[in-house]
Amino acid sequence: MKVGRVIGTVNSTVKDAYLVGLKLLLTDILDGTGNVIEKSILAADTCGAGVGDMVIISQGSAARIPAKTNASPVDASIVAVIDKVSLGQLKAK
Amino acid sequence: MKVGRVIGTVNSTVKDAYLVGLKLLLTDILDGTGNVIEKSILAADTCGAGVGDMVIISQGSAARIPAKTNASPVDASIVAVIDKVSLGQLKAK
Amino acid sequence: MKVGRVIGTVNSTVKDAYLVGLKLLLTDILDGTGNVIEKSILAADTCGAGVGDMVIISQGSAARIPAKTNASPVDASIVAVIDKVSLGQLKAK
Amino acid sequence: MKVGRVIGTVNSTVKDAYLVGLKLLLTDILDGTGNVIEKSILAADTCGAGVGDMVIISQGSAARIPAKTNASPVDASIVAVIDKVSLGQLKAK
Amino acid sequence: MKVGRVIGTVNSTVKDAYLVGLKLLLTDILDGTGNVIEKSILAADTCGAGVGDMVIISQGSAARIPAKTNASPVDASIVAVIDKVSLGQLKAK
Repeated sequence: MKVGRVIGTVNSTVKDAYLVGLKLLLTDILDGTGNVIEKSILAADTCGAGVGDMVIISQGSAARIPAKTNASPVDASIVAVIDKVSLGQLKAK
Repeated sequence: MKVGRVIGTVNSTVKDAYLVGLKLLLTDILDGTGNVIEKSILAADTCGAGVGDMVIISQGSAARIPAKTNASPVDASIVAVIDKVSLGQLKAK
Repeated sequence: MKVGRVIGTVNSTVKDAYLVGLKLLLTDILDGTGNVIEKSILAADTCGAGVGDMVIISQGSAARIPAKTNASPVDASIVAVIDKVSLGQLKAK
Repeated sequence: MKVGRVIGTVNSTVKDAYLVGLKLLLTDILDGTGNVIEKSILAADTCGAGVGDMVIISQGSAARIPAKTNASPVDASIVAVIDKVSLGQLKAK
Repeated sequence: MKVGRVIGTVNSTVKDAYLVGLKLLLTDILDGTGNVIEKSILAADTCGAGVGDMVIISQGSAARIPAKTNASPVDASIVAVIDKVSLGQLKAK
């Protein structure tokens, strides 16, 4: 999965029937310290995320495991809203 | 998914039988402000898109969920024509 | 899918049983104007392509939809030989 | 698969029901000599890994083969903790 | 698929039960002339490859088509040892 930040929404009238009712959110992918490392992944929301939220994005066939996206032609879904990213102290190796 | 702009078409005579009748459109992938961030994804059209349209592209097995592409060897499909991309005002965090 | 140009062949004696009889072609991925944007994707030929041909490459599980590759451990196949790439005049938006 | 180093954890309250109980670890992808070559892949732990551990990460549908992640919307899992990476002496060719 | 060169091995004690008995080889991805274009893909060996061998690597669900990897959580497998890469003379177009 990837850590993302929701930055906007996308609206469409002409679309696949199985996209009707899905909220599609534009997201930027972040590293652990909040830097953008990949831009503009469009993900189906499955858990009530909104603009500004830090979220977990699943891609590929994983994106269609939640009930809301099960029959939809989506390759990316928001599967969680993140409370906290904790960068651990690395163990000496 | 990705936000794309249709930039052209590709024609083939010698092709897989399950590509016959599919319109294949060349697209550039855009970020939320319209900059090209990835070039030349070739996607099967499932919703009547044309050159210049801003579209939603699904990749991987998602591309074969629409009825039109169900049996075809495609890894990218246009699943919506975009009306509007709205970049939200980020919530203070 | 991607637009590719066939640049060579790869031969193997020791290989998976389901690769026997498949022609594997080395391809470079091109943008719409013919510039190389990704190098050296090795794709199974399903439509009689040869060196120098411009082709359509499907990746992922799509690569195993053609009958020739159905049971083979391939993640990329040539599914069409391209006659013509037409870059359209963008509609004013 | 990729070689990764666990660098942190991610916590979520609002999430897909099938993520409940899974430990999600933030990882950096390494090359054979320990340099970071890709940042911040978030992977489900299936074998008791912790921060600082060098691990094997499987992505895509492979990530849902372990019993722990079988029904979860995950696209990356930690499937092993690495004891040792051995860079071999290349055979003369 | 990709052309790769085996550069090393990875050993793990703590791992998914379906990785037991699989040899995992670290590979670099090459272009047609032998330059490294992607580093450190970890692939399950299905055909007796060793360090220094030039090999064909299949990724994604294709990696689990060989009998040896069928039930394993792997996303990359070595499916052939390469005898020869032949870069063809491009046909005039």
